[in-house]
Amino acid sequence: MPVRLIESLSTTEALSNIFSDDSVLRAMLDFEAALARAEGRLGVIPETAAGVIEKVAKDFTPGDANLAHDALRAGTPAIPFVKALTERVRAADPMAARFVHWGATSQDVTDTALVLLLKQVRQLFAADYSRLEVALRILSDQHANTVMLGRTLLQPAPPITFGLKVAGWHGALSRGWVRLDAAFSEALFAQLGGASGTLASLGEHGIGVRQLLARELDLAYPDAPWHTHRDRLASLVTACGVQTGSLGKMARDISLMMQGEIGEVSEPGGDGRGGSSTMPHKQNPIACSLTLAAAYRVPGLVASFLSGMSQEHERGVGGVQAEWATVSEIVQATGLAIASMAEVAEGLKIDASRMRFNIKATRGVIFTERVMTILGSTLGRDVAHKLFEEATQRCVTENRQLVDVLGEMPEVTSIIAPSAIRELDSPEAYLGQAEVFRQRLLRSG
Amino acid sequence: MPVRLIESLSTTEALSNIFSDDSVLRAMLDFEAALARAEGRLGVIPETAAGVIEKVAKDFTPGDANLAHDALRAGTPAIPFVKALTERVRAADPMAARFVHWGATSQDVTDTALVLLLKQVRQLFAADYSRLEVALRILSDQHANTVMLGRTLLQPAPPITFGLKVAGWHGALSRGWVRLDAAFSEALFAQLGGASGTLASLGEHGIGVRQLLARELDLAYPDAPWHTHRDRLASLVTACGVQTGSLGKMARDISLMMQGEIGEVSEPGGDGRGGSSTMPHKQNPIACSLTLAAAYRVPGLVASFLSGMSQEHERGVGGVQAEWATVSEIVQATGLAIASMAEVAEGLKIDASRMRFNIKATRGVIFTERVMTILGSTLGRDVAHKLFEEATQRCVTENRQLVDVLGEMPEVTSIIAPSAIRELDSPEAYLGQAEVFRQRLLRSG
Amino acid sequence: MPVRLIESLSTTEALSNIFSDDSVLRAMLDFEAALARAEGRLGVIPETAAGVIEKVAKDFTPGDANLAHDALRAGTPAIPFVKALTERVRAADPMAARFVHWGATSQDVTDTALVLLLKQVRQLFAADYSRLEVALRILSDQHANTVMLGRTLLQPAPPITFGLKVAGWHGALSRGWVRLDAAFSEALFAQLGGASGTLASLGEHGIGVRQLLARELDLAYPDAPWHTHRDRLASLVTACGVQTGSLGKMARDISLMMQGEIGEVSEPGGDGRGGSSTMPHKQNPIACSLTLAAAYRVPGLVASFLSGMSQEHERGVGGVQAEWATVSEIVQATGLAIASMAEVAEGLKIDASRMRFNIKATRGVIFTERVMTILGSTLGRDVAHKLFEEATQRCVTENRQLVDVLGEMPEVTSIIAPSAIRELDSPEAYLGQAEVFRQRLLRSG
Amino acid sequence: MPVRLIESLSTTEALSNIFSDDSVLRAMLDFEAALARAEGRLGVIPETAAGVIEKVAKDFTPGDANLAHDALRAGTPAIPFVKALTERVRAADPMAARFVHWGATSQDVTDTALVLLLKQVRQLFAADYSRLEVALRILSDQHANTVMLGRTLLQPAPPITFGLKVAGWHGALSRGWVRLDAAFSEALFAQLGGASGTLASLGEHGIGVRQLLARELDLAYPDAPWHTHRDRLASLVTACGVQTGSLGKMARDISLMMQGEIGEVSEPGGDGRGGSSTMPHKQNPIACSLTLAAAYRVPGLVASFLSGMSQEHERGVGGVQAEWATVSEIVQATGLAIASMAEVAEGLKIDASRMRFNIKATRGVIFTERVMTILGSTLGRDVAHKLFEEATQRCVTENRQLVDVLGEMPEVTSIIAPSAIRELDSPEAYLGQAEVFRQRLLRSG
Repeated sequence: MPVRLIESLSTTEALSNIFSDDSVLRAMLDFEAALARAEGRLGVIPETAAGVIEKVAKDFTPGDANLAHDALRAGTPAIPFVKALTERVRAADPMAARFVHWGATSQDVTDTALVLLLKQVRQLFAADYSRLEVALRILSDQHANTVMLGRTLLQPAPPITFGLKVAGWHGALSRGWVRLDAAFSEALFAQLGGASGTLASLGEHGIGVRQLLARELDLAYPDAPWHTHRDRLASLVTACGVQTGSLGKMARDISLMMQGEIGEVSEPGGDGRGGSSTMPHKQNPIACSLTLAAAYRVPGLVASFLSGMSQEHERGVGGVQAEWATVSEIVQATGLAIASMAEVAEGLKIDASRMRFNIKATRGVIFTERVMTILGSTLGRDVAHKLFEEATQRCVTENRQLVDVLGEMPEVTSIIAPSAIRELDSPEAYLGQAEVFRQRLLRSG
Repeated sequence: MPVRLIESLSTTEALSNIFSDDSVLRAMLDFEAALARAEGRLGVIPETAAGVIEKVAKDFTPGDANLAHDALRAGTPAIPFVKALTERVRAADPMAARFVHWGATSQDVTDTALVLLLKQVRQLFAADYSRLEVALRILSDQHANTVMLGRTLLQPAPPITFGLKVAGWHGALSRGWVRLDAAFSEALFAQLGGASGTLASLGEHGIGVRQLLARELDLAYPDAPWHTHRDRLASLVTACGVQTGSLGKMARDISLMMQGEIGEVSEPGGDGRGGSSTMPHKQNPIACSLTLAAAYRVPGLVASFLSGMSQEHERGVGGVQAEWATVSEIVQATGLAIASMAEVAEGLKIDASRMRFNIKATRGVIFTERVMTILGSTLGRDVAHKLFEEATQRCVTENRQLVDVLGEMPEVTSIIAPSAIRELDSPEAYLGQAEVFRQRLLRSG
Repeated sequence: MPVRLIESLSTTEALSNIFSDDSVLRAMLDFEAALARAEGRLGVIPETAAGVIEKVAKDFTPGDANLAHDALRAGTPAIPFVKALTERVRAADPMAARFVHWGATSQDVTDTALVLLLKQVRQLFAADYSRLEVALRILSDQHANTVMLGRTLLQPAPPITFGLKVAGWHGALSRGWVRLDAAFSEALFAQLGGASGTLASLGEHGIGVRQLLARELDLAYPDAPWHTHRDRLASLVTACGVQTGSLGKMARDISLMMQGEIGEVSEPGGDGRGGSSTMPHKQNPIACSLTLAAAYRVPGLVASFLSGMSQEHERGVGGVQAEWATVSEIVQATGLAIASMAEVAEGLKIDASRMRFNIKATRGVIFTERVMTILGSTLGRDVAHKLFEEATQRCVTENRQLVDVLGEMPEVTSIIAPSAIRELDSPEAYLGQAEVFRQRLLRSG
Repeated sequence: MPVRLIESLSTTEALSNIFSDDSVLRAMLDFEAALARAEGRLGVIPETAAGVIEKVAKDFTPGDANLAHDALRAGTPAIPFVKALTERVRAADPMAARFVHWGATSQDVTDTALVLLLKQVRQLFAADYSRLEVALRILSDQHANTVMLGRTLLQPAPPITFGLKVAGWHGALSRGWVRLDAAFSEALFAQLGGASGTLASLGEHGIGVRQLLARELDLAYPDAPWHTHRDRLASLVTACGVQTGSLGKMARDISLMMQGEIGEVSEPGGDGRGGSSTMPHKQNPIACSLTLAAAYRVPGLVASFLSGMSQEHERGVGGVQAEWATVSEIVQATGLAIASMAEVAEGLKIDASRMRFNIKATRGVIFTERVMTILGSTLGRDVAHKLFEEATQRCVTENRQLVDVLGEMPEVTSIIAPSAIRELDSPEAYLGQAEVFRQRLLRSG
């Protein structure tokens, strides 16, 4: 249950449906119908036969339990599928049965079916990405001035704004979407090559059938068949991998900010989301955990795909058979991650006062760089460095703010006026180009 | 369709069933029933409550379409599952409903359920491995004296026996099974730790409940809960990875020997196996392609599992959520590969005369090493090497056998008697320790 | 030795040099010099200090054995590097020492250094890819009419041309290069963000320094620092992964065609290339084996990179530290594969008569599809299918050509004239759109 | 630099040295010397020749810059290596030169050399693992009673002891070491098979030479050559992968506990360890970041190895050539992770009061489960659940401890006496079987 359950919420349910047996069968039928139509129109097969095939394909319902079993025996679902379709066409019109799957090879139908499914996937991805993009943009704008700790190597660092952090996610995800969308465009090609990829059995009509088939299916057609050249699909799954990585970064940041001791943000809850069976007070980072799960899984799946690319001659042994499961897993995991982060971005709860509190709790030591820069240019970095180790030490042992300690050090007060020292730990005064970067990151999306 | 179809033949169907929603639900119910029974027996919960929970769990049927949806919202199937079970128990006996899932945490039920499924997997694997092992042993014995080309870097090399080649597969697969079986033994542990893994809510009965639970489920129990220590599962999936690699090597060898130009062996066909939609004469390496597909997929899946091992504190964010899908995919792919190679080993057709023909077709140049060894010790390797380049060249250009060319070279005939030269390209006379190695490889299994 | 030896031929040596300690150090020094220059020009630091830093950086030579050791202790080479540089600057001018690395953070220097190295890599890749592209184009044109077996699932299939096969490689590699080149363009950005990525310590000059720095290094600069947003680098390494997959496909095809029993092509040899220590007659597929080795290695390395993308907040713990080794390995393996296939494409020896012989040796059964298409439209596919099983069987048992057997079957001769039957197994007459596809594949490059 | 620098501290330097060109060359020479000795003793080659080869091998120093270049051309370092050795032997005694590398194939020397290096690796691993094991045991014992928050999904959970957490690491690492050590034992086999793996060129002495060679090198010898059966090596690298995963879990826990807002532990610093170039106050999790870097890298490398296992026939094309780099990277990364965590375990600074403070800061809500268990058995879980949501809400809004809020709720006080309520948030009173589990985990090591 966990395996499939995990793949069944809204987008996820939709994605799961796309890769269901029924949906795959429908896509294969659409291929055969479009092929017959194209061939009928060009006179490659009789128009009446084409009409019958189209009609039977349209009315086809599975109901044949042995299809699955037979597909495994044949090593591809195409063979028992074509056989089953042919039988039904024969029942309607024995003559027409001769022209089912005319000139095509098994991989023509499975590849085109896969592409038809991926076309549906693209629309789902686009819708959820759009929600995510808008939500991040709004969130970033709302928190353009919300200061928070920078954190490097999980240690406190000079302040940033939450708006900048969100804009950073936005920038990576926008770039990732541009790549992913381009990879879809490059990969969504009809496949038709026949036995050896030359369309020899279609004679002079090969090119024409190919073009018409693609048009019927509303797909582009590539310069040539691509039975063993899987770089376009590879490019699509790697783009999924990169995007899932960026989503994982966003999820990790949020899950860390949600820690009890930090408490700066919280995933939207309610409606069964994120509760604990034993601890009702908990709001767990559920969407983040699902997204990080995708980020853990997808890289290995990408490797699986890439390592199957060395496919032999005109039809591979093993490499191509490995693809469906891998592509399906990658696409579903990526889609779940996009949808989860869209939900989070739309409903994230922000505790700006806790963000400010966490800055304060560092006692000002995160402004060391700032003071170092001022003192270092006069005293040299080494001297300033030692001064700071001493000041920092006193902050900790005496539980005081850095500016207060500094205000008592003559080496410091001789360079910086006491009143200026007191301003040194204002986060707003030490944000550098945060706002410039934030705006540029949002614009680039 | 291809995705799931590919997972549905005999063993494969059985494996697919093991990971079906119904099967997972059944395993989770078994956990809750066993937990209640254990707690009832030790007086942690009322015996009557335990009895009701057990009965309801036994009679439980899903029929709740929202379980999947709710599981995704909750981030784990355990929460909606426990809720649904509790509601049904309440309908039978409101008091008993208080004690459902008593003291357990969500991961206790999902981990134990996974282990219960893996226990079933082990039996399937064992049965198919056993078929494979026996078939390989028989095949190797039958062909102890069947000579064939050795091939290194896909180039012809001195002869081996087909029996030795099979014994090599047998050796690797036997070692792999020993590791895999040991990994199952190490991993099949019940999980029970409660919220933080201390069983605090069970008070003094924690250890007792744990032991009884494991006994009820016929599982071992480990030294401590393992919610975020996944090394045992990791060890199991890596053992699957290694075994699938060895199966892939066997499949690659066979698919290469099946090439039209080589024609030394052939997969068992018939019954829809391996035909081609356009070329009825073909016998395709279908089982090999499915096995190689597994060998392409599993390494990446292993990486997915390993990269999720760095799980945070007492319950991970993402790492653990990634496991079910990955384990399920690895196990099913491995099982398909074992079953496929068992089928192949049991039905492989051997063409011993073609094997001998392929040796002959090299014109004897594969015996170069043999002659080199004899000549080299007298003439030195460099001189012998040059002599051979010349002889080999003449074999090719004059289309003659090496021994015939050598028999005309005075540098050779001065060292080896002409009659001895003619014996030099007898494969049987140049098998070295092939039979010794073969027997040792079979024995070690 | 094998590890590094394998990385040291021409391109490979050059790539290895790019990632040598000296080269990395040089890139880091270039960053510090450019930073000082930019800051001097904008008045952020004294111009004289900038001059001294530049000069010392230019004259810097390692000679400090402890740098390596210290880098490991510090967790980054940047810290001991900056310390060492500062000491040398101090020796030249104590005042200037205060301004070394001014406003930068460790990852600014390591990221920019990596980008500077990748810029060199791009040039090497481009040169070798260009050789490969030209050689494939020429080879394809030369063999536009060289017929050979198509092969599907490693079984004989209807004929193709060798020119088409080569064009298929060309198409995939051309597309791959477009992607790879675009990924370089996207990734070659200077890094400068300071402690938290806001350039706070540079005050109002942050943006200016960033622009000038990039210009000095002849790099672009991105919309914002990218310390924990690694999607651009990820996109580059995945593009390497896809290209290596396509190179692996080419290498696999060639290594299979080089098999003794097939003998259709041969890697260029000579000069120590591909010999065997014991079998002087062998021409091993060495370049193919190196390329396939890359194709085996890179997918996992890509997974390593992607799984490290979930980097925490403003500077990651572990993810970023994992990148250098992975990027360096991926780039070197990819470069070796490109260079190897360029060498092969330039020197591949073709045996066109063997290609034709291998077609003939199938006894014409590969033209089944052709005859099926003719007969099937009249008799129906099922009847034609059975007819063919019989004919094929007779070809094998009677060792005759298919057309001869067919010429004796009345079911066939009643449909096809005997003279036409005899033409049915002419490969030239059954190439379909091979030449159209070939030309389109070359054009698209 | 980062790439190699990262591999050069103590163990890491030692590991790096093991895989240096000199070290590999030494191992290859040891093989040739041992082979000559064995063959000399059995009369396969003249004893005097054996003596010369041994002596030259012992005195051999590289100094031949072209070895690397030639190795790449030949596709293996063995060929130019044997050539170079033969030349030097010839200079000493032309007759002896005939017998260098007698009966062996290239992969015999490279495989055995790899095994000789791995034998050294094992000792380094064992020493560091031993330090780590002892340090963890001591640390766990010292903190058997140090209470801290349990944390699930990065949210606060019922208390555990720090001793239990450490024992969890210890348990996983102990199990991992047992597996890793067993994998070394299984993999450390000499390789000797000759051209096709039958030792045909050694005639009747094949078995004898093999045994003597192994004895000379202090290695075991396997049942048969394993040129294309890489399961033993695969098992070793996967054991590295699993262990690195467990080390990554330890490193992740520590890096999370080191966060500024949590501050419970701190890596040992000093001596250039973990400082920041701009923030002197920081103590960065350097050893953790290096260990996590290994945990990010190794899974993909494991996939690389596994996907290369489908090696063709008697010598693979690409798969075997991919291994050296991968094994070397895995071993070095694993070794760095073991050594880093040993250093951390030996020097980890614990802030027990901060651990207790972090419990207190949850206001007692982590004891919900405890109170739920008491109330739930009387009121039923649903009623208790709602009660708690209310109480928890008040804790947060009124900033009070849970026990204080509960003490005012009549539904609670009617079941639990006020005095008992006040004890409910004592961590020591709610540790369940923490100490039992802790002791068992340590014992199992």
